[in-house]
Amino acid sequence: LMMTMSSPFWSQIVAELTPYTPGEQPKSLSGETPLIKLNTNENPYPPSPAALKAIGAERGERLRLYPDPHSEQLKASISDYYHLSPDQVFIGNGSDEVLAHLFAALLKKPQPILFPDITYSFYPVYSQLYGIEYKTVALTERFEIDVEAYAQPNGGIIFPNPNAPTGLLLPLEAIERLLQQQLKYNPSSVVVMDEAYIDFGGVSAAALVDKYPNLLVVQTFSKSRSLAGLRVGFALGDRALIDALERVKNSFNSYPIDRLASAGAVAALEDEAYFQTCCKKIMTSRTDLAHALQVRGFEVLPSAANFLFVKPKHIPAQELTKRLRQVNIIVRHFKMARIEEFIRISIGTEAEMGALIKSLDQIA
Amino acid sequence: LMMTMSSPFWSQIVAELTPYTPGEQPKSLSGETPLIKLNTNENPYPPSPAALKAIGAERGERLRLYPDPHSEQLKASISDYYHLSPDQVFIGNGSDEVLAHLFAALLKKPQPILFPDITYSFYPVYSQLYGIEYKTVALTERFEIDVEAYAQPNGGIIFPNPNAPTGLLLPLEAIERLLQQQLKYNPSSVVVMDEAYIDFGGVSAAALVDKYPNLLVVQTFSKSRSLAGLRVGFALGDRALIDALERVKNSFNSYPIDRLASAGAVAALEDEAYFQTCCKKIMTSRTDLAHALQVRGFEVLPSAANFLFVKPKHIPAQELTKRLRQVNIIVRHFKMARIEEFIRISIGTEAEMGALIKSLDQIA
Repeated sequence: LMMTMSSPFWSQIVAELTPYTPGEQPKSLSGETPLIKLNTNENPYPPSPAALKAIGAERGERLRLYPDPHSEQLKASISDYYHLSPDQVFIGNGSDEVLAHLFAALLKKPQPILFPDITYSFYPVYSQLYGIEYKTVALTERFEIDVEAYAQPNGGIIFPNPNAPTGLLLPLEAIERLLQQQLKYNPSSVVVMDEAYIDFGGVSAAALVDKYPNLLVVQTFSKSRSLAGLRVGFALGDRALIDALERVKNSFNSYPIDRLASAGAVAALEDEAYFQTCCKKIMTSRTDLAHALQVRGFEVLPSAANFLFVKPKHIPAQELTKRLRQVNIIVRHFKMARIEEFIRISIGTEAEMGALIKSLDQIA
Repeated sequence: LMMTMSSPFWSQIVAELTPYTPGEQPKSLSGETPLIKLNTNENPYPPSPAALKAIGAERGERLRLYPDPHSEQLKASISDYYHLSPDQVFIGNGSDEVLAHLFAALLKKPQPILFPDITYSFYPVYSQLYGIEYKTVALTERFEIDVEAYAQPNGGIIFPNPNAPTGLLLPLEAIERLLQQQLKYNPSSVVVMDEAYIDFGGVSAAALVDKYPNLLVVQTFSKSRSLAGLRVGFALGDRALIDALERVKNSFNSYPIDRLASAGAVAALEDEAYFQTCCKKIMTSRTDLAHALQVRGFEVLPSAANFLFVKPKHIPAQELTKRLRQVNIIVRHFKMARIEEFIRISIGTEAEMGALIKSLDQIA
């Protein structure tokens, strides 16, 4: 894709932007040798049959009508699920849109915001888009988040929990310590917990929403609910924080959630048994893969997410990524300081994990 | 919906926003007396059966995977349809998201932008969201756009064609005059033609895209393609303008178009016969309704859209809106200078138009 470098028609911000680059989305996974896609942390299991059924039921004449601009039904489902009230829920077109709106609504403050030096690489992009100053806080040598390092003047704190791409989980008591510390030192700045991967072994901070007015929790249907193709994310927080998001959203796009996405998400949330089964299978495969890699000399970070962040012993990470791509296995490598010797592997099905190990044994 | 008035957690922009208010979307159109919904310019006819079939085919295991972040298939379909190249096409989550991105990417300039005093009421909201100065240009007494009135310093020009909520069409030769005039007086400012309603009797400026580097055309699948419930809009323009939109979009949300929406939109675009039939039926009903209203003393503006903007003779517009709502017919009234004596009526099915006339005869 050739990009124009600049144009007199552009507003000032455009030329300065360095957009986010998502992982490769190949057109098709089938072919002579089917692709094994372990690069964007999708769920290897299909969406709940109940979700597919609900989408089928909504697919019809009604699509001529706008969806509910307030997504009330989905808000009711999510608030029930987390024992909150509907006005503590915000819905967006994937958690990326939720994040975009919250950067504008809650993180553009007089002080710079804080996030880890190694984290979701969309955060600096949002900051640039909205002209938000940020400061990174180094993870410890073991890639852990040091809560006390965030006790400094800031306009807000954001990080994924578990963190990406490391997979490391910050326990709930540490988050509560962070929330109290932030209320004390930066009483008008929020803490955003980006919980895209929380369902694979973590405990959500959703339970703290009623207690901390400075907490916003962001989640998605893309990972644990197997609905990346539908684009639904949400935020949970005190009503004042949700109002801020609604104001920005309603000044941007009245209807970001289409009828089929809303119907599918509601049904997915109701199918608790299917959800638990898929999450458990992924956690089991994660344990198995971690073991198989450790046996082969890989350094494996302890992961509470649906991926492993690992450092190969006998081959540079970038080289291994290339070699795997040649045998139709896609993993993700980040050319970034401190982590360029690591690769991120999404947890696939048992069969996919078996094929991965077989290929690794042939490569190195 | 109670809104918080302010909060120390909000960024400065939030408290200043006055969000857009879309027309009422009732939960259900059925009931003892079915609702006749003529307030948000939806198509009264269902989506193309081919679109519904394509959505059905995409509904399945694949929904676990992210959609193509570049919507290449849909870009190819749209560019084929308009005899352009795919890099002259931008896709968004409804034309409202396309508009939001273009305000940020192309209309935030040192000079104020221009739009009519009576027009789509989302434009001032976008301007506020991005801190864009604007100046309104009065429509003529007959509610027409006066091209020469836009020959003044500006950072960009935007209006719907046909205009909303008036329905009046600016002919293509006038648009070409405007584009030339703008190139002469404001050579680095764009002209945006918001063609949400162009398929109901207008001629798209899409054919001018190759000739004018300062032209951006915005369209939607929500009206003439009966897919408001799916959220797909697009822009056509010179590659440099499209690049600007892509840069902002890719700094905001990688995947705004879900898999089902993309599949449905591609199929809808291919079903030209169905599209033509629906548009023709709506245009015929529009002519019939205009006649019936004129006979009853209404002032009816000449419309090239799927709605009529009309001034009742014997009853104030707001009162008529209320009285129609009491008999389950929803139309839209705007409490705005110059047009508060008008109501906007979306064109429905023949049966719905018959029921409307019957109710009008009972009311006034």
